[in-house]
Amino acid sequence: LDSIHFSTGIFGLYISLAVTGKSVVIFWVHQSNADQVDTFIQLTEDELTKYSELPREKTALPSYPEDSVGTIMTREFLAIPEQYRIADTIHFLRNHEIGLQSKYYLYVVDSEQRLRGIVPIRKLLWASKEQKVVEVMSTDLVFVGIDQDRDVVTKLIEQHSYLSLPVVDTRGVLVGIVTADDVMDVMEAEATEDFYKMASIGSFKTSLKDATIPMLFRKRIGWLLFLVFMNIFSGAAIAYYEDTIAAVVALVFFLPLLVDSGGNAGSQAATLMVRALATGDVQLRDWTRFLGKEVAVAGLMGLAMGAAVATIGFFRAGPEVALVVALTMIMVVLVGSVIGMSLPFALSRMRLDPAIASAPLITSIGDIFGVLIYFSVATWYLGAIGLL
Amino acid sequence: LDSIHFSTGIFGLYISLAVTGKSVVIFWVHQSNADQVDTFIQLTEDELTKYSELPREKTALPSYPEDSVGTIMTREFLAIPEQYRIADTIHFLRNHEIGLQSKYYLYVVDSEQRLRGIVPIRKLLWASKEQKVVEVMSTDLVFVGIDQDRDVVTKLIEQHSYLSLPVVDTRGVLVGIVTADDVMDVMEAEATEDFYKMASIGSFKTSLKDATIPMLFRKRIGWLLFLVFMNIFSGAAIAYYEDTIAAVVALVFFLPLLVDSGGNAGSQAATLMVRALATGDVQLRDWTRFLGKEVAVAGLMGLAMGAAVATIGFFRAGPEVALVVALTMIMVVLVGSVIGMSLPFALSRMRLDPAIASAPLITSIGDIFGVLIYFSVATWYLGAIGLL
Repeated sequence: LDSIHFSTGIFGLYISLAVTGKSVVIFWVHQSNADQVDTFIQLTEDELTKYSELPREKTALPSYPEDSVGTIMTREFLAIPEQYRIADTIHFLRNHEIGLQSKYYLYVVDSEQRLRGIVPIRKLLWASKEQKVVEVMSTDLVFVGIDQDRDVVTKLIEQHSYLSLPVVDTRGVLVGIVTADDVMDVMEAEATEDFYKMASIGSFKTSLKDATIPMLFRKRIGWLLFLVFMNIFSGAAIAYYEDTIAAVVALVFFLPLLVDSGGNAGSQAATLMVRALATGDVQLRDWTRFLGKEVAVAGLMGLAMGAAVATIGFFRAGPEVALVVALTMIMVVLVGSVIGMSLPFALSRMRLDPAIASAPLITSIGDIFGVLIYFSVATWYLGAIGLL
Repeated sequence: LDSIHFSTGIFGLYISLAVTGKSVVIFWVHQSNADQVDTFIQLTEDELTKYSELPREKTALPSYPEDSVGTIMTREFLAIPEQYRIADTIHFLRNHEIGLQSKYYLYVVDSEQRLRGIVPIRKLLWASKEQKVVEVMSTDLVFVGIDQDRDVVTKLIEQHSYLSLPVVDTRGVLVGIVTADDVMDVMEAEATEDFYKMASIGSFKTSLKDATIPMLFRKRIGWLLFLVFMNIFSGAAIAYYEDTIAAVVALVFFLPLLVDSGGNAGSQAATLMVRALATGDVQLRDWTRFLGKEVAVAGLMGLAMGAAVATIGFFRAGPEVALVVALTMIMVVLVGSVIGMSLPFALSRMRLDPAIASAPLITSIGDIFGVLIYFSVATWYLGAIGLL
């Protein structure tokens, strides 16, 4: 933190102009005689425009944890010392009618730069000029810590309809603000990242228009290769049941439809959970509750899909195969759904990202279970009735 | 629009208190002698709290098109007539220091209630009391139409860092405002809807916690049944190549891995496009440009995955099968990717939702092409070298 101190001497006013990274904090850190204030160090509009046009990535300090409030906050805000009177405050504001992001609130700080209160600028309209700012400020503060997860900001802004929130460090020192439009950018970026993960794509922050061919290749190939190896298990399972297939070739017709159904139902369940965990709609402790619900929903879906596939099976391959495919469908949908809904919770529990439970991953897992269930049921039942 | 007009008679001040739906608009629609203003009809805090706590769904008027600005705007804002002086405005504000959402801007309207300008409340601090409001208001207006798509608001707020935008009807009459936190709710809801669609789930607006079992069943079963019927084609294709399979049973081992790879690469491509179209990063006209890029990326991925699968094929089934599976992999990944990236554009072109191109749908389409490509290549090549 490069901090430059100017002293205006005769007024006993110390101004700390902390230029951090490339953004600007204006702090009146100490002031021995607030009544005599009549001069301020003022940044030119050019300087401020230059600062505020820097991309967010560059103004963020690299030392904050990833996805923390520190990475999205702006350091452009107006802070005044608690000794100020309303007259000083209005004077201060007139001299800072400039391109700052937050023009709606003034933050009141003590001599240690700790946040003491907030003054909505409109309140200055009906305060008396001789009143002290501490008399009109609101001390019912809602603020966030610089190291907190930035999701916290989203939730607070949505809950309280605030348009900006002050950010403090561990000592309570005001270090920045987060505005609703910063949060919107973050929400959009995070949703995009989750979309990518749900399709087994590595995250990247640039626009898709600017993504180069080598970059897209790198972000997509990893999971695709992993899934190729996952699918070897399905292939091996099919190969293992070669004899069953050879005896009742009609079974192969139903293979894609049965194994995909488990993956599809599982992808639905996984997506519902990943999204609900991301938005905070569902917490880790809700797992058992949703398990019961999922079993009920999947059971109903399995019955409906089993009935559909039994009809096809009956006309194509007779009642025996119809029974096998119907039973398989119910089990495959149940197993796929339970895996799909549980995996995001399990990943979250292991402090991994729930969105790793992507649709392609669930599909591949569903395929393996699907093949095993299908041919086990077929071998057992068709063997029992003497068809194998 | 139920509009109740009060006349305060002696001051020549007409106040239109339009109670619409269950929300509140305060309009000073006409005022013959602004200088004499000293009384206002004021809502009690209880009344306003009651109104502002109503869920958004209920305050939205049913007559606005789905997803239009009208469905998310709030009707709580402060509008003043253009004849006002600063003194009148401050008086007005003092009497409305109440629970309104937007306390940052005053909207200036003419006698027809058309939007003429905006006054940031902080500007009142350094205007002279005798100045007219039209002298200090900003006429460089950014506003949205009530029938416009609500995405427009998201984009404007993100671009300009505005915290709220006025909403006008076709005649330019100010009818509401949209605030950044309203937009955040919408963004989150729309992202959730797109997540659901990408996993073939029908959209629903309630929390997942409140979703009932019959409701979840209804939202999930439709696409699942449709996909069962889609997969019949894959099954039929496999059955058609029964002889090839019987001759070289080793081919079955590679079936899941080859067909899923096309679907997985296709799901990635579709997700990238669906998301980019949703955020406005990519437009319909960009299709050809992305087609070229996708072919390049998919070609590289196909080569890498083809090499991987050829290695497995060589050790498991010899050089002939290795060549067949490698060739198939390249073609399957190319075809899957091109379909995956093109389908969202095609749907968008047909004025359908691009997100219909869900991962499960692309997987099923990829399966069909995968089976056809695999067994065509195998039948052709293994036939040519005399193995069939």
